[in-house]
Amino acid sequence: MIAAAPGVVADPGLRTRLADLYADYENTLNEGALERWPELFSTDCVYKILPKENQDAGFPIAVMHCESRDMLADRVVALRQTAFYVPRIMRLMTSGICLRRLADDGLYLTASFVMFQTMQNKPSDVFLCGAYQDRVIDDAGALRFAERQCIYDSTIVPLSLVYPI
Amino acid sequence: MIAAAPGVVADPGLRTRLADLYADYENTLNEGALERWPELFSTDCVYKILPKENQDAGFPIAVMHCESRDMLADRVVALRQTAFYVPRIMRLMTSGICLRRLADDGLYLTASFVMFQTMQNKPSDVFLCGAYQDRVIDDAGALRFAERQCIYDSTIVPLSLVYPI
Amino acid sequence: MIAAAPGVVADPGLRTRLADLYADYENTLNEGALERWPELFSTDCVYKILPKENQDAGFPIAVMHCESRDMLADRVVALRQTAFYVPRIMRLMTSGICLRRLADDGLYLTASFVMFQTMQNKPSDVFLCGAYQDRVIDDAGALRFAERQCIYDSTIVPLSLVYPI
Repeated sequence: MIAAAPGVVADPGLRTRLADLYADYENTLNEGALERWPELFSTDCVYKILPKENQDAGFPIAVMHCESRDMLADRVVALRQTAFYVPRIMRLMTSGICLRRLADDGLYLTASFVMFQTMQNKPSDVFLCGAYQDRVIDDAGALRFAERQCIYDSTIVPLSLVYPI
Repeated sequence: MIAAAPGVVADPGLRTRLADLYADYENTLNEGALERWPELFSTDCVYKILPKENQDAGFPIAVMHCESRDMLADRVVALRQTAFYVPRIMRLMTSGICLRRLADDGLYLTASFVMFQTMQNKPSDVFLCGAYQDRVIDDAGALRFAERQCIYDSTIVPLSLVYPI
Repeated sequence: MIAAAPGVVADPGLRTRLADLYADYENTLNEGALERWPELFSTDCVYKILPKENQDAGFPIAVMHCESRDMLADRVVALRQTAFYVPRIMRLMTSGICLRRLADDGLYLTASFVMFQTMQNKPSDVFLCGAYQDRVIDDAGALRFAERQCIYDSTIVPLSLVYPI
């Protein structure tokens, strides 16, 4: 269930549609269907991965910063064709999805995420955890992310950040 | 979605209200809004953090034991003003929230929690996991915790337990 | 909330029933009520635990492979009466439960799981994470698992796999 913050009225149908969007996002990444990942965003989206430390201090530097769906698609091409990295399995889990505000420019939501990483012949481990800060819009009948900020808790730059979160 | 145990009848509206309460609790702690935390409890609430080992053996000793909303508020003041501890970011995730019983004195629920801890310049890690055992009441139109027991799985006393769970 | 994949129509009542089944499964294992665990499966069920590596390569070898509810019950008897293992507490969390397909032979769902393990006098840790691939049927009015495959991400054989997932 998508929850709603105090005072936010959200009918069951909207909550269900949002739950389906979030599950679709999670499934897309967990199944490694990266080519489908940009489709979950609007064409002029913003996608960022940045540490909580920067976010809290108002520093704009992000580890990853894309400003359109095309940039996300570029990122996937780079990842598939040019990046060198040790094989790994990522597993994303999202929790506490909450509709915080309904505004003219979309639905504002927050959630927690944890990404588990499994390297070959190693046990699975926590890779990153943090919060999503999202703006979701109705894009010609389909809900899509117009903005997704992935704000991770750690102060360490995740050098091995290969896949999107 | 708040699930219900076999035989427990829970209409969608109640499940939604409960989902909103649980999300509110999680958000309050994850955002460090500790001053708001006691408001999620009834005035004469019970809040405990204790190891599963003690709970199973019937030993009452808890790592933290508060018997009113005022005691929770005191705890927050102590934490803000007198406690010394290394800065850290806690992230709480709740899962498997389930309505177990509707009784005259409230709604009985259980859930699993995991708390991730991130120290400065360290990777995020599992801090504690365990189960909530809750009693929720309708307190003049708002759902609130009349009782929340946080029963953690580990047998180690979590010396660095700073924040509530 | 049980989410549904794009194009899959699932009414709220079905989603609720599925949420209750998944919560029941999680509670049963987290409370150590192993004798009740086989009841959540149909009599001629399939239950498997296997690494993603084998699944992806089409190799059928599973760490655990049961082909009926009776085999699950046998497993529980073996675990209770003959297995030797160091005491531990397992905590299962399920996330991203999603209805992927409605077919003549049942409802196909996927989900992510993470199992935390706590040994005596040790901190809690990630034991295994991975994906469920499930087929659920309506078995004379009750939803039950006709098939549950637990596909874990790690390539290491979990030697200390004692409890079901």
